[in-house]
Order: sequence, then C-alpha cells, then structure tokens
Amino acid sequence: MNEVEIKAKEAYNSSLLMANLSSDDKNAALESIAEVIWDKRLEIIKANKKDSEYAQKLVSSGEITEAIYKRLVLDEAKIKKIVDMVRSVSLLPDPIGETLYSMKLDDNLNLYRVTSPIGVIGFIFESRPDALVQIASLCLKSGNSCILKGGSEAKNSNIVLFEIIREATSNLPYGWIQLLEARQQVRDLLELDRYVDLIIPRGSNNFVRYIQNNTRIPVLGHSEGVCNIYVDYKVDINMAINVCYDSKVQYPAVCNAVDCVLVHKDVAENIIPILIKKLKKGGVKVRADTRVQGIIQDAVETLTESDLGAEYLDYILALRVVDSLEEAVDYINQYGSHHTDAILSTNEINAKKFMSTVDSASVFWNASTRFADGYRYGLGAEVGISTGKIHARGPTGLEGLISYKYYLKGDGHIVSDYVEKNREFIHIKTNNDWRDYHLNTT
Amino acid sequence: MNEVEIKAKEAYNSSLLMANLSSDDKNAALESIAEVIWDKRLEIIKANKKDSEYAQKLVSSGEITEAIYKRLVLDEAKIKKIVDMVRSVSLLPDPIGETLYSMKLDDNLNLYRVTSPIGVIGFIFESRPDALVQIASLCLKSGNSCILKGGSEAKNSNIVLFEIIREATSNLPYGWIQLLEARQQVRDLLELDRYVDLIIPRGSNNFVRYIQNNTRIPVLGHSEGVCNIYVDYKVDINMAINVCYDSKVQYPAVCNAVDCVLVHKDVAENIIPILIKKLKKGGVKVRADTRVQGIIQDAVETLTESDLGAEYLDYILALRVVDSLEEAVDYINQYGSHHTDAILSTNEINAKKFMSTVDSASVFWNASTRFADGYRYGLGAEVGISTGKIHARGPTGLEGLISYKYYLKGDGHIVSDYVEKNREFIHIKTNNDWRDYHLNTT
Repeated sequence: MNEVEIKAKEAYNSSLLMANLSSDDKNAALESIAEVIWDKRLEIIKANKKDSEYAQKLVSSGEITEAIYKRLVLDEAKIKKIVDMVRSVSLLPDPIGETLYSMKLDDNLNLYRVTSPIGVIGFIFESRPDALVQIASLCLKSGNSCILKGGSEAKNSNIVLFEIIREATSNLPYGWIQLLEARQQVRDLLELDRYVDLIIPRGSNNFVRYIQNNTRIPVLGHSEGVCNIYVDYKVDINMAINVCYDSKVQYPAVCNAVDCVLVHKDVAENIIPILIKKLKKGGVKVRADTRVQGIIQDAVETLTESDLGAEYLDYILALRVVDSLEEAVDYINQYGSHHTDAILSTNEINAKKFMSTVDSASVFWNASTRFADGYRYGLGAEVGISTGKIHARGPTGLEGLISYKYYLKGDGHIVSDYVEKNREFIHIKTNNDWRDYHLNTT
Repeated sequence: MNEVEIKAKEAYNSSLLMANLSSDDKNAALESIAEVIWDKRLEIIKANKKDSEYAQKLVSSGEITEAIYKRLVLDEAKIKKIVDMVRSVSLLPDPIGETLYSMKLDDNLNLYRVTSPIGVIGFIFESRPDALVQIASLCLKSGNSCILKGGSEAKNSNIVLFEIIREATSNLPYGWIQLLEARQQVRDLLELDRYVDLIIPRGSNNFVRYIQNNTRIPVLGHSEGVCNIYVDYKVDINMAINVCYDSKVQYPAVCNAVDCVLVHKDVAENIIPILIKKLKKGGVKVRADTRVQGIIQDAVETLTESDLGAEYLDYILALRVVDSLEEAVDYINQYGSHHTDAILSTNEINAKKFMSTVDSASVFWNASTRFADGYRYGLGAEVGISTGKIHARGPTGLEGLISYKYYLKGDGHIVSDYVEKNREFIHIKTNNDWRDYHLNTT
C-alpha cells in the first residue's frame, strides 16, 4: 500500500462514522474550526508568507500571473472572511438524514428514501488556500470524508490550515480529513476508485481534462466554459448591448464570461456598430466573421478556424451574424461547452424555443451569462459547476455531496407471499419521516 | 467514422429534438409501438423461432442454461405482456419539463430548475428480447435517444423488434433509436463519451465489470449483489428463520438473494439448528464457520477464504456467528457489495444503528432482501439497480434517465450592478412553474 492508499483507506473507514454524526456534533466541529483558525491567524499568515514570497519570484520570472499571486496571499481580513464562511456553513440546514420520500408498500412494510453522504470526496485545487477550508467545511457538514490536494504554490499555507482543521476536529473520526502534498500523488489518488467516490477538480481546462481522462472515479466539474449569447431579431437594442458588455467585460477571466455573440441578421446593422464601439471602449478585441465585416470593416480582427468553440478567458470576443434562431442553436450545441448560453429577445416563443433546444446546464433569457454561479443562484455554497448531466448539472451546492439510501421496515415480510400467494402490494406514497418511523409503522 | 460512431452521432442529434416532444406525441408513439408489435406478433414469433431453435442446440451442448433459453422464447402470451408493459409506460406521468424548484433572485429575475432528458443512453443487455422494448419505451417516455445492443442469442428477435419500433415511431426524430448487432461494436460504443451520456449494462457480473472498467461514460448498474442478513440477539426466532429462508430460496439466481447470514452468538444455539434444517429441506447447501460447527457438526460444509464476499446465485449460503452488531456491520461493509443488507431484530436502537452504519443502497429491518426491486419499491419501472452513490442509488426507475437544466429569466439584468453597485440578491424560494412563467415574472 502506498501512502495515498493508506490515507484513502483511513478516509473511507472514517466516512462510515462521519455518516452518523449528529447535526450538533458537526456544527460544534465547524465552530471549533472557526475559532482555532482565528486563534492561529498569525501562524497561518507566517506560513502563507513563505508561499507568497516564493510566488512573488515566480511572478517576476513570469511563471505565474499576478492574479494567481493575489489569490494566494492571506492577510487578517481574508482570514476573517474564511472564518465567517465556516460559520455560515454551520448555519446551513443539515442535509443528511432527510426523508426524500416514503412509500407504504404494504401493511407494516414501509420504504423510506433518506439522504446520506456520498462517502469520500477527493478535492484537487490550485493555489487559493481558502478553498481548502471551504471544501473541508462543506464535507464535514455533509458527513463526508475528504482527501485534499492543493496547488504547490500554497503548500505551506495548506499544511498549516490542514493541521488546524485536524486539531480542531479531534472529536471526529480521526481520518476524516487527509492532505496530499506531492503532485505525483494525484495519479495514485485517481486509481483508488474502491475508496474514493467522487473527485472535484478546480483549475485550468487542461488540468480538469487531465483528471477526467485519467480516472474511473466520477468527476464533478467542467473543463471548459464556452458561453454564447444569441441576439434575436425581436430585441431591445440597449438591453442587448448592456448584457453582452456585462457578460464579457465584468470579469473576463472566468468560465461564465461570454465567448461568442451571435446576432440575427435583421438587427445586425442596428446593433453591431454600437456594440463594437462599446466593447472596444471596454478594452475588448472583437473577432468578426465576414458578415460583421460587411457592416463595419475596420476595427475588428477576422475570425479563424481556431475561434470555433474557443474559450478566451480574456478581453476577446467572437462576433457572428446568423440567419435564424435555429442556426444559432445549432452553432451553440456544436461549438459551445454546454455550460451557460443566453438569448436576448422580447419574443416569448423564440426565447422558449431557444431555452428548450440549447443543450446546456444553464440557459438564460435576457440576463448576463455571469449569473451562472452557485452564490448568485442562491445555493448557499458552490462545490463546483458541472457540465455533465449525471448526478449534478450546472452550479452545484452542498447537494452535490449528497446521495441517498433506502430504508425498508417490515415485520417479517417475505417475498414468496407476493409471488407464490399473489399477495398484492399497496404502493401508496406517504409523508412519513424516517426519524419518526415508530409513529407511522402501520 | 465507424458505423457505431455514425449511429451515436445520429442518436445525439435526435436527442436534441427528443427533449422537446410533447407528452401527447410521446404517448401516441408508445401506443403506436404497442399496436404494431401486436399486429406483427406472428412475424416476431417467426424471427424468435430462429433464435430459440439455435439456442436449443446450445442448451443441449451445455453452452447456455435452460433458464436463459426460457427467457429468450417469445409466444403470443409473452408478446401480450410486452404490449401491456408499453401501454403502462404511456400511463406514467411525463417526467420532463417539471419544475423541481424555483427561486426569485431579484425583481424580475427568476431561476427555475427544470427536469430534462439525459440525452443518449447506451443499453447493453443479454438474451431477453422484451428488455429491448422496455428500455426503448422508457427512453422514449423520458425524451432520451437510445443505442441498444442485445445478446447474440436473441439477434433475430431484436432486429425485428427494433425495426417495428422504428417503423411505429416514424413521426419521431429518425435517429432516436439505434441497434448494434456485432459484439465488437460494444467496444466502439464505450469510447464515444462525446455522444453517449450514460451506459446501462444488464448481465453477468463479469460482463458489467468489463463495461465499468472500460469506459469513461458513467455506468448505471451493479456488477455484484452480495447480500447479507444479520440476526440480532433480540429477535423473533420464527420470523428470522422465515426471512432468511425466503431471502435465499424464493429465487436464488438473482442479485438480491442473500449470500451470508451472520447470527449473534447469544441466539446462535436457538436459531442455527432449526435454520439449517429448514434450508436443507429447501435444497440449500450451508457453508459454516467453526463456531456454527461447534453447534451443529454435521450437515454443513466448511467456509473457506473464497467464500468471503462470494455471490452464489445458487442454493448455497454462508453462515457465521458474530460477537456483536458492530462485528456484523464491519463484515458487511468490508465483504458485501453495498447492494442490500438486512437486520432481523425486535430492538429499535440496534436496528437503527445497523441501518445507519451499513453503507449499502438498501438496508432492511425485518424484511426479506428479495424486496430490493424497482417494481416492489413502487417505482413503476426499473431501469437498473445501482450500487454507486452518484446520480442514482439502489433500484432506479425512470428518474435514472432524467437530468435537469437551469432556466433564468431576467429583463436585462447584469452582474456589474451587483458587484460594482452593491445591489443585493433577494433569494426567495417560490412555487413558480416554468411552464407558467409568464404568470409569475414579477
């Protein structure tokens, strides 16, 4: 057994106990994490300094960006935010043990579908040390064990935070939280489908795609966020320009920023010159097809093959003219990444048609693509954005860490009575709660 | 592009249209399938005869079992049952387009989570030609495309049934249903994760494990059903013996039959002699540990290493004595397959402890393990039994073929108002239905 396997087995064994913690125990553990993090903030800042000094050198040599450096650095204000986040998780309702539905199969034979943790979550993330605390808190709240592997740039910060959480949760099953430190251990982790139930990767497209392509463990996440906006022929022009602008310029480096705007030919001449002017003021380079260039020749670059389905994560936008809504939908289904796409239209029929035929996790009508986010959706906490359709789709909250199991309570019921003696099932949905089962067994 | 890729792409393109069929269109197509199957029953029986005559030879030479042969043969009565099954699917509520929840994010900014099909389902099954019709009906009802690969023993039957369904559903997007005929095409299918969203395999353990180990596409199913019963020290002895007997003898060849009974030491002497006597009358060979043999020396075989976690699918049962509930739980979590396990007990605390700490999809209290079945659970139709915890767990009905997407309706909302101008989200759950969105946009 290698080191990762030992840790994963420990996490698995602990997960069986984590599943049965009371809400009070879990919330007390979260409060303890918040307190110890705050008490040891100077120690955290000291460890983080080692990371950030090293990272500063990498910025100078151009190996990492200034943005990554900024996300890495922790000060007292950021630690206060982390502590608040942990406390906000303890305020969420306990997602475990909830009866999703119950059914009376026969007299005194009652079935309950009850929420349960998934088991062991492998979480692989880059830089940001606050991500470690966030995912640990969410796993604790949902009764899961977790195996964490952070970016090497945040190594010292991650070790301190991990040790603080382990110390603060010494009342919990010891192995519930595990830290991997070496990059090559990720490969070992991806092999351990007998212990690890779900992998959540956060990071660059290539990184997530590598994870997806190298494990049999289910992966919750998305490699690409290629987002599109279709501007319909029935549209409020000012609104359309504002929404396109916001979708790109408000924060271009993220997955839900728009990459391609498709304008219906009937409004192209009215919209495109104003849109391009505004985008350029915002610092956006527009790459346009020949039909756009037929309207406005200068001031745009020409689209090439490599722009098809490109995710820019930058102040770059593809702009195309389409003949119809259908053409836009076909383009989006073929070249988008099933993440978030929007229609801007005042026509209800067109909007509904677009929304029902675009095969994406989030489909918007007259709103910026930047709204695709767990916090903005009101999910409380976001564990990831999924472009898969299995288990969880789109921005995913705590529910992404939840499974369920079936409880069946009989009083000696046997199947042969139903098969050989033709006894009939009743199959009536009930409102019984497993926690009160003794009140409703008849 | 190989043949399978062409078919998968056709299925994918059709799936975008299937997602938007009305309930009436889907139910009319199901009725049409039922009618054409009944009209062409002689043609089906004729094709099936070719399969069954060939299979009869394989039975004689011992290559397939009599049971497989029987499941393969179709007569008018069996075809009537298939037709009834198709009609029963059309009576189920439409699972697509249902608003799972809605939330007001801000004035005129409303979010809806709405059920949608998954897309393309690959279904790989052995012999039984009725399985082809069942899965096709369930996929149609849930707006999914399907790619079917049946066992070679039923090749002629499957071709006829497939052609009938395609003909009967000529109003639907043409490529919604696809048939693969050659065994080696399964390998091609498992590569097509860009078109196929979910694989459902039915068949032997080795077959399912092969599928699970050779694809990146999510798999809904189970390779093994190693089921256990723990007989607690507080127990009604007659009930315990009846339930153990039923769990094994009622139908031993299936995944939810019990494989190992663990008896608490305090009741072992009272229960084991009677249980063994009854099991032997039922034709069951009992393999026992040394503690059981300390109670009853003869009439049992000795357990070996290979019995740990064995799935017998036969009239064989492992019998062990344990010192405690905890020992039973540890044994089950280690050697079971997380499928279905039961406690027989009159003690509520023990039962609840067992049920919450056994890490299985179905956990029973005083009921036969044989109840773990979609029909018995009242799910209407069973697409599979999952031992995974992602997406679906345990017996899985039509909901296993369902995903969801997010619809967001604004009137030009942009994110910069919330980020730069500190506008606040409202985040109130509502009871709005997406289908009536125009009634509740404020």
